[in-house]
Amino acid sequence: MKKRLIGNLIYGQSGGPTSVINSSAYGLFTEAKKHKDRINKIYAMHYGIEGLLKEDIIDIDNYSDKELKNLLTTPGSAFGSNRYKLGNDVEDKDKFDKIIEIFKKYNIRFFFYNGGNDSMETIKKILDYAKKVNYDMCGIGIPKTIDNDLPYLDHTPGYGSAAKFIANVVSQIYFDDNSYINGRVNIIEIMGRNAGWLTASSSLATLNGAIIDLIYVPETPFNIEEFLKKVEKIYQNKRRCLVCVSEGIKDKDGNFISAFSNDYDAFGHNQLGGVGIFLSSLVTKRLNLRSRYIELSLLQRTNTCFPSDVDVKEARKVASYALKVALRGSTNKIVTIKRVSDEPYKIKLGLLNIALVANKEKYLPLTYLNIEHDNILPSFIKYALPLIGNDSKKEENGLYKSFKL
Amino acid sequence: MKKRLIGNLIYGQSGGPTSVINSSAYGLFTEAKKHKDRINKIYAMHYGIEGLLKEDIIDIDNYSDKELKNLLTTPGSAFGSNRYKLGNDVEDKDKFDKIIEIFKKYNIRFFFYNGGNDSMETIKKILDYAKKVNYDMCGIGIPKTIDNDLPYLDHTPGYGSAAKFIANVVSQIYFDDNSYINGRVNIIEIMGRNAGWLTASSSLATLNGAIIDLIYVPETPFNIEEFLKKVEKIYQNKRRCLVCVSEGIKDKDGNFISAFSNDYDAFGHNQLGGVGIFLSSLVTKRLNLRSRYIELSLLQRTNTCFPSDVDVKEARKVASYALKVALRGSTNKIVTIKRVSDEPYKIKLGLLNIALVANKEKYLPLTYLNIEHDNILPSFIKYALPLIGNDSKKEENGLYKSFKL
Repeated sequence: MKKRLIGNLIYGQSGGPTSVINSSAYGLFTEAKKHKDRINKIYAMHYGIEGLLKEDIIDIDNYSDKELKNLLTTPGSAFGSNRYKLGNDVEDKDKFDKIIEIFKKYNIRFFFYNGGNDSMETIKKILDYAKKVNYDMCGIGIPKTIDNDLPYLDHTPGYGSAAKFIANVVSQIYFDDNSYINGRVNIIEIMGRNAGWLTASSSLATLNGAIIDLIYVPETPFNIEEFLKKVEKIYQNKRRCLVCVSEGIKDKDGNFISAFSNDYDAFGHNQLGGVGIFLSSLVTKRLNLRSRYIELSLLQRTNTCFPSDVDVKEARKVASYALKVALRGSTNKIVTIKRVSDEPYKIKLGLLNIALVANKEKYLPLTYLNIEHDNILPSFIKYALPLIGNDSKKEENGLYKSFKL
Repeated sequence: MKKRLIGNLIYGQSGGPTSVINSSAYGLFTEAKKHKDRINKIYAMHYGIEGLLKEDIIDIDNYSDKELKNLLTTPGSAFGSNRYKLGNDVEDKDKFDKIIEIFKKYNIRFFFYNGGNDSMETIKKILDYAKKVNYDMCGIGIPKTIDNDLPYLDHTPGYGSAAKFIANVVSQIYFDDNSYINGRVNIIEIMGRNAGWLTASSSLATLNGAIIDLIYVPETPFNIEEFLKKVEKIYQNKRRCLVCVSEGIKDKDGNFISAFSNDYDAFGHNQLGGVGIFLSSLVTKRLNLRSRYIELSLLQRTNTCFPSDVDVKEARKVASYALKVALRGSTNKIVTIKRVSDEPYKIKLGLLNIALVANKEKYLPLTYLNIEHDNILPSFIKYALPLIGNDSKKEENGLYKSFKL
C-alpha cells in the first residue's frame, strides 16, 4: 500500500531554461496551496541541486500570489538553474548524505525537479539514495526542454513556445526579404545540437505564405558542395533563397559542419561563429551572392512575449499533475504527455519510470523529411501545429496574420 | 488659393522596413476610402519608385477590407521597397518624364511616399519636377524609420516597436543569464550605424529589474582597452556582465570598431561578423571569460508579434493625416510628430517642408549619456517609455512582467 506522506515540498529547476519552465513552477505552487492538509511549506532550490547542497533554499511563502503570477511571463529559470552532475552514490556519498540531511532538516517529503533528460538522471539518483537510507519521500520529474527530445513523450513543455517563436520569426524574415526585388541568401541558424525538432518547426511558417527553400537538420548528413549547388540554383530562379539550419548539422562522418570553418578559411576562429555565419560566408565567397546569417540564439528559449498558449497551459498542467500523483504516493516517475487526438487536439497526462527517460534523446523521425533530406513534409506540420497554439485574434494557426500581394 | 484636386492616389514604400510601415499603408487606404468624392482609385507602387518606373503598379481595390487589415500584422514592406536613388532632373530627365507620364496615365493627383530621410529626397525631387512641368498634384511624405533619426520629429513611426522589441529581449537575456550562478559576458549587438536611439532603448529593460552594465552608442568614441578593463571589473564583482552595443560604434578617429577584427586577429574575415561577435571574441581571448554575442539583426524591424500599440496607432494616424492635408492642398511636406505632454503622453501632428528633413540625420543627444559615456540616463527612459506602449495585461510599462527573487 502506498504511503500517505505529510510534510514540505521542494522544487528545483535544472538545465537550459524554456519560455514556460516558470509556468510549471507556478502550476506546482498554486496546486500545492490547495493541499494545506498534506503540504505545509513550499520551498524552491536556488540554482537547483547546486544550491541545495549549500542549503540555498527559497521560501515561496515570502512571495504574494500576485508576484508569483508574474512567473507566467518570466524568462529564464526564475529560481536559478544548474548543470551540476551528481556522481554515483559511492563516489559522491558525502553529497547524497548532505542532501538527505537537508531534506530531513526541512522535512521535505515531496521533491519535484523540472528539467530535461540529464536532470531526470539527477532526480533518479537522489530518490534511489533516499530509498536506500530509508528516507520516506515522493519525487516526480517535471519535463521541460525546448529541444523536444525526451523519449516516450509526444512533446515536451517548452517546445511549443520555441516552435512558435521560430515559425513566426522565420515568416517575418521571409516577408522582410520580399520587400526587395533582389533578395538575399538568408541563413537562419536554429538551436539543436543533435535533434532537428526546433529547426523543423520553421516549416510552420509556410502556413503564413512563407517559402522556406531549404531546411537542414542534424539527423541526416549535410554536404557542403550539394548545399552550395542548390542555393545557387534557387537564387538564379527567384533572386532569393531562405535556408533554415540546425546548429548541429554534421557531415557524413559525423563532424560538425561549424567545425569546418578553418578548412574553408572563412574564419581564423571557429569557437564563437556558428554554422550560420560559416555557411553565409561560404555563399558570399564561393557563389558571390549577397548573404546574411541570422542566429536566433537565446531568443528561442526566452520568448515570453508571445509564447504558445497551449504550451503555457500544459506546462502548468504537467506540474500540477506531478503534485497530485505525488500526493497519491507515486515516486521516481516522470510526467508524460500522450496525444489522444489531433483534431481536436487532445492530450492525456501519464507517468513513466524516470529511468526510461534519463539521459536518453529522441530524434526527429526521418519520415518527416522529404526525399532529398533538405525540407520538411506536411506530416510534421500536422504534428507541430497544435503545439504552437493560437492565442490572439491577430493569429491564424499560431502565426501572425500577413497580407499577401 | 489652394487647388482642390480630384483624381487617383498612389502610395509607395521606400528604405528599410519597420514593424509598422504597413500599418501606415492601412491607415492611408482606410482614410482614402472615406473620400470617394475626391479620390477615385487607390494604387500602390510595387517596389516604390523602382517599380513605378516600370509601371509596376498594384490596384488596391483588388483586395478586400479583411485582407487589407492583415497589413497591421505584416512585417517587411508589403508593397515592396527600394533603395533607388533618383539623380537630378537634368541627368535623370528621362526618368522624371517617365514618372510624370505614368502619373498622367493613371490620373495620379495624390502621391504618398513612406520612408526615412533618403526617401524624402526622392519625393521632393518628383514633386519639384511635377511643378516645373505644370503637372498638378499633391505629395506628402509619411515618415518611418526604426532608427528614429529624422530631424524635427519627436520620434518616428517604427521606432517605438523596435525599442519595445529591444527592451523586452534585453530584459529576457538578462533573466536568462541570471539562471546560472556563473553568468557570461553577454554582448548584444543592436542596429544603428550612426545614431544610438535603438541601442539606448535597451535601458528601458531596467524598468523590468534588468541591469544593463554597459551601453555604447555611436555618438561617442569607443575605446577597446577601457571596455575590456570595465568588463573584467564588472565580471569579477558579479560573475556576469551585460553589454548593449550599437553596430556602428567607432573609435576616436571615427573608424568602425567592427573593422578592427583583422588587427586583433580574432577573425580572418571582417565582412560578415559584426561588432558583437568581435567584442565577444576579444573578451574570450583577452580576459578568458565565457562570452556570447547576440545580434538582434532583422528581428528589430520585423517584430509584428508584440509591436508597440502606441506606434501602430501613430503609424496609422500620420498616414491618414497625410491624406487629409493633401486633400486640403498641402504638398511637398512631411508629416511631423510633436510631443505636447509627457504625462499623460500626448502628441500633435504637423507639417514641415520636406527639404528640411531630406538626407538629414538626428543623433542621440549626449545629455542622455552618463558621464562615463557607457550607460544611459533616466531622462532618456522618460522620453522613450511612452513610445513603447503598454498593450496587454501581461505588460507593465511596455515590458512583460517578471518575477524577481
